[in-house]
Amino acid sequence: MASKRLSHTALRPLLPSTPPKLLRPSARRPISAYGYEQAKALTFTQYGDPPAVLSLHTHSISPAHSSLLTLRFLASPINPADINQIQGVYPSKPVFTTALSTPSPIAVAGNEGVAEVIGVGDKVKGFAKGDWVIMKAPSFGTWRTHAQTTADKLVKLEPAAREGISAVQAGTVSINPCTAYRMLSDFVKVGEGEWFVQNGANSGVGRAAIQLGKAWGLKSINVIRDRPEGVEALKRELAELGATVVVTEGELLAREFRERVKEWTDGGREEVRLGLNCVGGEAATAMAKILAPHAHFVTYGAMSKKPLVLPASLLIFKDVHFDGFWVSKWAEWHPEEKKKTVEHVLELTRRGEFKDMPFEQVPWEWETPESELIAAVKGTLEGFRKGKGVFVFKNT
Amino acid sequence: MASKRLSHTALRPLLPSTPPKLLRPSARRPISAYGYEQAKALTFTQYGDPPAVLSLHTHSISPAHSSLLTLRFLASPINPADINQIQGVYPSKPVFTTALSTPSPIAVAGNEGVAEVIGVGDKVKGFAKGDWVIMKAPSFGTWRTHAQTTADKLVKLEPAAREGISAVQAGTVSINPCTAYRMLSDFVKVGEGEWFVQNGANSGVGRAAIQLGKAWGLKSINVIRDRPEGVEALKRELAELGATVVVTEGELLAREFRERVKEWTDGGREEVRLGLNCVGGEAATAMAKILAPHAHFVTYGAMSKKPLVLPASLLIFKDVHFDGFWVSKWAEWHPEEKKKTVEHVLELTRRGEFKDMPFEQVPWEWETPESELIAAVKGTLEGFRKGKGVFVFKNT
Repeated sequence: MASKRLSHTALRPLLPSTPPKLLRPSARRPISAYGYEQAKALTFTQYGDPPAVLSLHTHSISPAHSSLLTLRFLASPINPADINQIQGVYPSKPVFTTALSTPSPIAVAGNEGVAEVIGVGDKVKGFAKGDWVIMKAPSFGTWRTHAQTTADKLVKLEPAAREGISAVQAGTVSINPCTAYRMLSDFVKVGEGEWFVQNGANSGVGRAAIQLGKAWGLKSINVIRDRPEGVEALKRELAELGATVVVTEGELLAREFRERVKEWTDGGREEVRLGLNCVGGEAATAMAKILAPHAHFVTYGAMSKKPLVLPASLLIFKDVHFDGFWVSKWAEWHPEEKKKTVEHVLELTRRGEFKDMPFEQVPWEWETPESELIAAVKGTLEGFRKGKGVFVFKNT
Repeated sequence: MASKRLSHTALRPLLPSTPPKLLRPSARRPISAYGYEQAKALTFTQYGDPPAVLSLHTHSISPAHSSLLTLRFLASPINPADINQIQGVYPSKPVFTTALSTPSPIAVAGNEGVAEVIGVGDKVKGFAKGDWVIMKAPSFGTWRTHAQTTADKLVKLEPAAREGISAVQAGTVSINPCTAYRMLSDFVKVGEGEWFVQNGANSGVGRAAIQLGKAWGLKSINVIRDRPEGVEALKRELAELGATVVVTEGELLAREFRERVKEWTDGGREEVRLGLNCVGGEAATAMAKILAPHAHFVTYGAMSKKPLVLPASLLIFKDVHFDGFWVSKWAEWHPEEKKKTVEHVLELTRRGEFKDMPFEQVPWEWETPESELIAAVKGTLEGFRKGKGVFVFKNT
């Protein structure tokens, strides 16, 4: 799909209104004589199915003045939460505004991404042209070529932190790797050689947890969904990332599973101290039952759409604690920690200890038609072959 | 039932083998010429239905020597956990021993109680004859007239702490009031004027939580089971204890309940920071849903025998934490805290801020027949009219 998309883009005819010289790499953006940026954004005026409600809106951005900064986006992933937000079922609501020169309020989709600072007002401190920034909080609207905002909405990636890091790596570090990182760090101290267990191990968070766990000397039991084919290949792939054990949900639910856990954990002497759950339902209950006393079980998703069902004995007699984690709120409460976490993951990435998630790169050039951008959102909604999509901005 | 039991006891003929003079108050215990205590204990040799497996065992206790202490029990309640332990379904297992001069190992039933020290070995430090003691850990075996043990198993009630306190009050403080006290204190700081919500509000723990909450300036929403009659009387009774609001489970599950909570809590500005759950099932879920963000929900029982069912959103987006509490383990881990907690509750009792639970006093005299003692256990199992039973030792 990526190659087809690329070739299609390469053949795309220029719009007659765009002067050919502006498409040279050195003059890639359509900029007016007065320094106004031309910008495009994937927007919606009401909640609904993304293909039905999204539209590509073109507007202009005035030169940055006072405390304003102008950003040019480099990479913005398409996360499931972005889609839920467009559907209106995500608790973090987008901002509907007429600031983008529309008669009715619109919201820009997208919550995560990395942008380059291309304009700085005279009252802005701590940011300069060329800086890379990520968003401090959700609902920024990252599916757009440009934005104008204030410094309090941004986290700057220090030059040392972005060295050798691609835009896609920087643009996808805030949500999944941060979620895995904080869940492995903030609830219970899992010591070296101790275990955590997780479901959805093949997800972005799951893969991040496997790699961070390995970097920190933790062992992991990783649960993946049963699937008609490719189970062994996926098990091998996750093992290569650093998973100690990979099992299917069917294996997790089998009668002998607890005996297998005992074998892996030296008869239980190596404790399973932490569970990470994005599935819910009976598979989550089964996972909670292998935890050691005083363990923490952290829920960050509910892909089965089923609630968590917990025997009281797990709480009362085993003293297992059930918590939740939402990276958006965490980042709002701990902006400094977010910066440190992101920089640490990028450091691991640079050292080769943390690999990119399998993303489907979706080029977003100035002339990329609306239909193609929306098709990429639909693609992530339905599940790309390789993983989620990420908009990569080129010549914008 | 109590009055019937009392009159029956009063009319009980003396056993021919017991010299009449020993039944005078000043010489109430059958003591041998060599200082051996005659003791009786409700024991079992195997798990099962209490009336089927319990039997009254008579044995003698040698004079306390070395590091041993001899105790005479004053009051020992019949708690649901005691019954579960006899049934073999409680995780804290009793000790089966031949130390009470039996050919096969037996266990003494009962986990809570207060006893008087009546004999002290020469190596015992910190205890003297006449001291009142409670048990440090479960499975002591408190349904007996006498016991011999070592100091490490006991918590001494300082003379100041027991001043003006009855044996029943001291003998029933370790489990229910301690459970309520720690759950209100150890999970989240509920500030004065803030709320907690609990089900099983009519239970021993529930009544303790109401009273402690009132003493500490906390407001409470209290859920009781629906019942064919007496709802209004019970609501009044709990309100008199200090409950701010009392509702039935039916009211909790009604559509308009959340609106009512808003009214009580000044539109939600007064936060419900803590939930105490001993029921489980849908009533527990409904209770969790009225909690404020970051609240804690502590499970200490599952009277409905249904698991806890939790929508993931409560964990992820509302950051509610689900914990459990088991007073037995807590006391094992924090013996000093247990002593302080008990003494503080007794202090509140002395000041009139903490009232006795409604107990059915079951006199246990030297001659009380086995059938009568076992009937009292059965009575608690089936639910006394007034509350649980408590053995009160007299002339033993």
